Amino acid sequence: MRIEHDFLGELEVPDNAYYGVQSLRGSHNFNITGQKLDSDFIIALAMVKKAAAMANLKTARLDSKIAKALIAAADEIIAGKLHDNFIVDPIQGGAGTSINMNMNEVLCNRALEIIGKKKGRYDIISPNNHANMAQSTNDAFPTAIKLCIILKSRKLKIALKRLSWELERKAQEFKDVLKMGRTHLQDAVPITLGQEMSAYASGVNRGLRRIEHALINLHYINMGGTAIGTGLNAEPNYIPEVAKILSVLAEEDFHVAENLIDATNNTDGFADMSSALKNTALMLIKMANDFRLMASGPRCGLNELKLPARQPGSSIMPGKVNPVIAEVLNQTCYQIIGNDTAICLAVENGQFELNVMEPVIAFNLFNSLKYMTNAVNTFVDNLLIDLEANKEQCYTWLNHSVGTITALLPHIGYENASMIAKEAYQTNKPVREIILSKNLLTEEELDIILSPSEMTRPGIAGDKLLKENLRKRA
Amino acid sequence: MRIEHDFLGELEVPDNAYYGVQSLRGSHNFNITGQKLDSDFIIALAMVKKAAAMANLKTARLDSKIAKALIAAADEIIAGKLHDNFIVDPIQGGAGTSINMNMNEVLCNRALEIIGKKKGRYDIISPNNHANMAQSTNDAFPTAIKLCIILKSRKLKIALKRLSWELERKAQEFKDVLKMGRTHLQDAVPITLGQEMSAYASGVNRGLRRIEHALINLHYINMGGTAIGTGLNAEPNYIPEVAKILSVLAEEDFHVAENLIDATNNTDGFADMSSALKNTALMLIKMANDFRLMASGPRCGLNELKLPARQPGSSIMPGKVNPVIAEVLNQTCYQIIGNDTAICLAVENGQFELNVMEPVIAFNLFNSLKYMTNAVNTFVDNLLIDLEANKEQCYTWLNHSVGTITALLPHIGYENASMIAKEAYQTNKPVREIILSKNLLTEEELDIILSPSEMTRPGIAGDKLLKENLRKRA
Amino acid sequence: MRIEHDFLGELEVPDNAYYGVQSLRGSHNFNITGQKLDSDFIIALAMVKKAAAMANLKTARLDSKIAKALIAAADEIIAGKLHDNFIVDPIQGGAGTSINMNMNEVLCNRALEIIGKKKGRYDIISPNNHANMAQSTNDAFPTAIKLCIILKSRKLKIALKRLSWELERKAQEFKDVLKMGRTHLQDAVPITLGQEMSAYASGVNRGLRRIEHALINLHYINMGGTAIGTGLNAEPNYIPEVAKILSVLAEEDFHVAENLIDATNNTDGFADMSSALKNTALMLIKMANDFRLMASGPRCGLNELKLPARQPGSSIMPGKVNPVIAEVLNQTCYQIIGNDTAICLAVENGQFELNVMEPVIAFNLFNSLKYMTNAVNTFVDNLLIDLEANKEQCYTWLNHSVGTITALLPHIGYENASMIAKEAYQTNKPVREIILSKNLLTEEELDIILSPSEMTRPGIAGDKLLKENLRKRA
Amino acid sequence: MRIEHDFLGELEVPDNAYYGVQSLRGSHNFNITGQKLDSDFIIALAMVKKAAAMANLKTARLDSKIAKALIAAADEIIAGKLHDNFIVDPIQGGAGTSINMNMNEVLCNRALEIIGKKKGRYDIISPNNHANMAQSTNDAFPTAIKLCIILKSRKLKIALKRLSWELERKAQEFKDVLKMGRTHLQDAVPITLGQEMSAYASGVNRGLRRIEHALINLHYINMGGTAIGTGLNAEPNYIPEVAKILSVLAEEDFHVAENLIDATNNTDGFADMSSALKNTALMLIKMANDFRLMASGPRCGLNELKLPARQPGSSIMPGKVNPVIAEVLNQTCYQIIGNDTAICLAVENGQFELNVMEPVIAFNLFNSLKYMTNAVNTFVDNLLIDLEANKEQCYTWLNHSVGTITALLPHIGYENASMIAKEAYQTNKPVREIILSKNLLTEEELDIILSPSEMTRPGIAGDKLLKENLRKRA
Repeated sequence: MRIEHDFLGELEVPDNAYYGVQSLRGSHNFNITGQKLDSDFIIALAMVKKAAAMANLKTARLDSKIAKALIAAADEIIAGKLHDNFIVDPIQGGAGTSINMNMNEVLCNRALEIIGKKKGRYDIISPNNHANMAQSTNDAFPTAIKLCIILKSRKLKIALKRLSWELERKAQEFKDVLKMGRTHLQDAVPITLGQEMSAYASGVNRGLRRIEHALINLHYINMGGTAIGTGLNAEPNYIPEVAKILSVLAEEDFHVAENLIDATNNTDGFADMSSALKNTALMLIKMANDFRLMASGPRCGLNELKLPARQPGSSIMPGKVNPVIAEVLNQTCYQIIGNDTAICLAVENGQFELNVMEPVIAFNLFNSLKYMTNAVNTFVDNLLIDLEANKEQCYTWLNHSVGTITALLPHIGYENASMIAKEAYQTNKPVREIILSKNLLTEEELDIILSPSEMTRPGIAGDKLLKENLRKRA
Repeated sequence: MRIEHDFLGELEVPDNAYYGVQSLRGSHNFNITGQKLDSDFIIALAMVKKAAAMANLKTARLDSKIAKALIAAADEIIAGKLHDNFIVDPIQGGAGTSINMNMNEVLCNRALEIIGKKKGRYDIISPNNHANMAQSTNDAFPTAIKLCIILKSRKLKIALKRLSWELERKAQEFKDVLKMGRTHLQDAVPITLGQEMSAYASGVNRGLRRIEHALINLHYINMGGTAIGTGLNAEPNYIPEVAKILSVLAEEDFHVAENLIDATNNTDGFADMSSALKNTALMLIKMANDFRLMASGPRCGLNELKLPARQPGSSIMPGKVNPVIAEVLNQTCYQIIGNDTAICLAVENGQFELNVMEPVIAFNLFNSLKYMTNAVNTFVDNLLIDLEANKEQCYTWLNHSVGTITALLPHIGYENASMIAKEAYQTNKPVREIILSKNLLTEEELDIILSPSEMTRPGIAGDKLLKENLRKRA
Repeated sequence: MRIEHDFLGELEVPDNAYYGVQSLRGSHNFNITGQKLDSDFIIALAMVKKAAAMANLKTARLDSKIAKALIAAADEIIAGKLHDNFIVDPIQGGAGTSINMNMNEVLCNRALEIIGKKKGRYDIISPNNHANMAQSTNDAFPTAIKLCIILKSRKLKIALKRLSWELERKAQEFKDVLKMGRTHLQDAVPITLGQEMSAYASGVNRGLRRIEHALINLHYINMGGTAIGTGLNAEPNYIPEVAKILSVLAEEDFHVAENLIDATNNTDGFADMSSALKNTALMLIKMANDFRLMASGPRCGLNELKLPARQPGSSIMPGKVNPVIAEVLNQTCYQIIGNDTAICLAVENGQFELNVMEPVIAFNLFNSLKYMTNAVNTFVDNLLIDLEANKEQCYTWLNHSVGTITALLPHIGYENASMIAKEAYQTNKPVREIILSKNLLTEEELDIILSPSEMTRPGIAGDKLLKENLRKRA
Repeated sequence: MRIEHDFLGELEVPDNAYYGVQSLRGSHNFNITGQKLDSDFIIALAMVKKAAAMANLKTARLDSKIAKALIAAADEIIAGKLHDNFIVDPIQGGAGTSINMNMNEVLCNRALEIIGKKKGRYDIISPNNHANMAQSTNDAFPTAIKLCIILKSRKLKIALKRLSWELERKAQEFKDVLKMGRTHLQDAVPITLGQEMSAYASGVNRGLRRIEHALINLHYINMGGTAIGTGLNAEPNYIPEVAKILSVLAEEDFHVAENLIDATNNTDGFADMSSALKNTALMLIKMANDFRLMASGPRCGLNELKLPARQPGSSIMPGKVNPVIAEVLNQTCYQIIGNDTAICLAVENGQFELNVMEPVIAFNLFNSLKYMTNAVNTFVDNLLIDLEANKEQCYTWLNHSVGTITALLPHIGYENASMIAKEAYQTNKPVREIILSKNLLTEEELDIILSPSEMTRPGIAGDKLLKENLRKRA
């Protein structure tokens, strides 16, 4: 054990620990979730710290030897080392000060080791004076949150792109699977399964654009704003420098926020990111629900889609297989929407120069990004790739339906159409049969009008035929 | 026009108006929703004012002539008169002071007329000194909110009871409609449509109990707490008196809250009421969704329920009928859940001795109660009463299914059951036929085991048969 | 009374009514909110109908005389006439069919009158065949929702721009009002009230950009998608034409959505709009809270801002004035967040080719836009314009504080700073006095370092002095 | 490695693993949160399994040797052993089947070991036939969720009771700390800090009652409902037996739900529990906010409360101490409200005979219970116990204020009161001084009226004096 102190007094720290007295206080004060800090976030914060040290080296405020040791320590953390030294709970009071100080202490103690000194010798390298130089939790912490969101979004965007591609591939595969389109869960007019898949892909692409757009704002950082955005104790040339260096380190294009005070006390940019996830989740829920409906059955449901069997569906019913992968996508999306509520409440509760609720914002955004990535990946890998259409069933439904009547409207008129619809529902006879029996259209004409390509594209099905017939009559 | 003044200065008031200067200021300051105050709420607040006047008369603090005039004026408002004199927006700043003063001013001016004086003679009867005697907005307003919730809940409870009764009636009517039970939208084991209806009724009854329970707390009022719950300027014997009188007027059992300060600054009892509505809405959504699923089709869906046709379903598709009544129940429930979010945000934002966000809480609770009542009533009247089962379709599904295999498990063993399930899915043959072809059970035995009454009650279907067979083998 | 019929039967319609049988059915089925349709929305839908009639005229599918009559009728509605003929509740089942048919019927009956025919002669001009030609509720209704959002956003954007301008004006006015910056509600380091106002303006501008961005998507419409987005019965050249005409009519740049099926069944673009409002509301709440905190007092609070007195604050406490305008902004924002919840639930619940929950989405979006516009306008007009700073109080707080110590850090070192902070808190002596008594800095030096301009801009306060002193020592 | 199979095929399982093939499939399919199952929940589910085995032993359906081995295995899990064998993610598709089968497999394999057999010999003891006998995931899983909620609530109730007691203790300690009461953040009338503490305690007690009430419903379980609540394959005498045994094991009073079908397909009881937590959180947020406001300063804020210093508040500002413990309570409460949103979405999305979204409901409820317990405990231990009042500051504020004027109202009249309030605000003179200078009341009279005990209890401050004076005048 070694003794460390801060202005509240002394505390014993395990001798092999890289964290220090303030980390310990934080871990005693906040034992809420019992979870570890997100690993991507530890890396992101280390990158921010490295960028600050490099900028302080450049402005010559930080001693070169100390700077190099701190940078070397940061590189180790970026490489995934020392992560078990981050001991504070992700939900914490103090606006992230405990996380920031945990990082400052680990960096210092590792830097001290690197230059051959003992851990705890903060008189040589200090968490506050050196690791935190020209910084405050209030600029370093939100900047690291932004970077972590960006890092995690890279994975999510790959997942969503795969989803979009696979849906497009299915759109091609199913382009000839004609089926009944449904509105209000009621039979409407024909569509192809391929068109449906393409519409999902279109929705996913919109999700991607939405996420891309929300990320733009997160590239505007408040490094150099220090405590309250006024920039006290941050030299003017340090500010653009740290943004430039972080851009190189993260291979992203960071900018200094136009109004550093606004950027320090308002967190609505995080709400925008969460909204982007939430609204994408809303669309994914709709898609998952459609898949579950189309796969319903196998005997007493729609049975239009065959999902790959992934696991026995029941502990009591033999042979049962459930759409478990779609279900987990649903649930993950509910979680993301719930996380958004927590984020909104936190964003709303900033006061004056700071939003002290940032830790819970970060916690939820990181989880949302991670969960959505995982759920989309399992949806692609364990459901979509092996998805099959039940073409026969789709055709049977359609053939049996009355919904094609809408396509005949321009040919036989609204009055006839209504009369036939009524008769079809009452007698259970196919529409086709009734029309033929009434000599309203010939079999050849029906073949043209009711052909899949005619009924599922913009225009009047059989419009050439219609014009010809009109000409004949005239 | 007459001139009125308050400590901010003078304002012109239309001479025929019963409201006064403070109402006018409020209506200028808050033009948010453009909606009128809820009529039930105006009545509830008038009842509170009447009770206060009667209690002040009893404690002899209020002059008898003034008291009687104020009470007479209140009675008119309770009878539905003068409501167009309430000119302030339901969403307003000031914690309801504008509403309270609007009422005080209308009461005074009408009371002045009653005793033969001109409107505006506040030197004779004063909104602050007489109509508001021993009160503050901070006790009169939340008390009136509580009373209004109670009044509106009476209507809601009747609506929910009707819903429950009609569902039970349908449970009886459909008790022999055997159908496939579904979990995960996948075929499970048999159930009757009556059992399903009975389960909905059970859920609705739980909703009723939930609402009843939330109402209990709302009978604890803070009248006499005055400005901040300490009771400054409210005489000790006035406090129980006003609760007693209000109980008589409203035919409810009101009590003085145990801790008047808590009762003045905490509004979580309103959140409880909103939760009761929200959680009941969650159950109603599930029910409405089930109805929409069961009514899906008519040709390309489950088609197990026939909903009464209420209106043409489409402006383009002839003959289409949609489950519009179930859909409006869904949407109303979404609104109620949204209203709950607004309420929660408001409840959370009390500070010190008061929650100044009460107007938006009241606005949403009143709407939720009203909307739910209306949506449930339309569901009962326009859907449930004329609901029909498609018994044939239910039976066709079930007969065609593999899900009955679970009932045979104890008779033929898990291995055989799995084998038969597989064969049924692959060959599309009925389970019954496969079993008979393998001589696993006789037709008579199958009739016993697969009888509706056996498969839809707790126990092993055909257990007597099983025991007999086991005995024979032994 | 006249008799009208649809395929469900006959109904009596008042003879002077322009609405017809289907409007009546809708009004009987849905009596939920008791509110009227939004007037801007009636206008927007009329513009969509006019555009469709013009496009149908251009493609020569619609008879010229009928087209002109329908267009003339639409123009009347656009001019604000006939609005009392819209009798259906904004929350309704049927995905807006009742609204669409209400419009179709009013248009037809007015058009019939225009051409000298009797109302109800649908054999001449038909709601379904002519007013609704080449349309479905499923394309006309969401297109009108989008247009209405755009119309309402124009007003909101003006309100937000005024808010931003006035905040910037206050930023100028208060640029020399030095005050204590606060984080965690605890004294931090100095800032100017002008800087705070400028940060709010910056946040409001971000809100404006957010709304602008959400509006982009809403310019992609699905007119011509008809029932399910496949475009059945809409001629290919009609589709771009109607978008072009609507662009001219509305003076906006509308485009045909790239994927009409996606555009018909997914409503997440509305969720994006609602998120834009919600996230702007989050920022406005924070601002309103800050105003309320800064105006707290007048004697027992921060008392840094003087809000204009808008109305007496209490029915019981003489002389009390409350921040009612900021409070109503808070509450309106809660409502908008609640509305967003309702919208999200509705968006999530689309199924297959349509989201039938669109009416409740529209209802909430229209309300959110309207309420936010009104609340921002009252905030500007009734609070911000007459806002005054309490410069003396701001200075008294700051002078009395220990928070300036951070500015001295580079000059006297961390150890000295901590020691002085401790002494200041214990003895209640001003920091300045302690420093002078210890001869750490001279009065002249303190004047330089602690000057407002030094402490509230990026950099080390008194950095020139610091360098000079370092040079002297060296 | 050993080979296991289910009806989807074979899989290799590590030989030392107690879990089996279905657990493995589940862990492959669902990798969403990366978190472990909650330990209390593993115990709760083991207790349910033990109760089922005991009931099956009693009804003689389960072989005694197998039953005893399964019970012994369950006891080990209840004692905290084997928990690392639970490998499935808490958010999962399949309505908990993977969790249930994970438990069934661990029980079987451990039971096989106990009777001296090799793991994997499911022909001897089978996860489906024996561990799951007379059960389905659909009854065992929700029953275990209920039990786990009850177990976790025990800890939460202790935490909330401690909070209530400590608040009451502080109410006593601060009963003479007179301070300014505030409404709208504006000076109102006097109160004591003790009264405020007592009001918080009252709110916490209401939270406790709310949680107690929500727990009642959770004692009604659906064990024996099996797959869909009809009870297929569960013998009638098994059903009450398993509830009775579980009651003994858990020392709780469980009952068989009245309607097992409703109890299987509706999950709104979980929403009720979540609402209880949410609404209690709303009240805790208000309390935490008040604490943070009262502790604001130390120099530029209200400074009425002294919170114990728990950690340095800033990485840049020396001597700063923040209300970190109150802040973490706020954030935890936001998380709980967010969790409630996720739960509501899941509850809403049940379909037919089951709500397949139960896993995400359980995940969030367990987290909410755990987080609230932890946050309340840290609030009590690290803030409340060492909380001190700044009595002098409270008195200084009050003495300096105009708010006492309300107490003088009955003595000097509304007109005088308003005049004096105005003069006080304009001249900054104390109210007392003005009154004396005007000879409205004597110093002795003011001492009586403005005494703390008079101004902070129900009634007219100095009412005896008032009556006497009235008598004198008469």
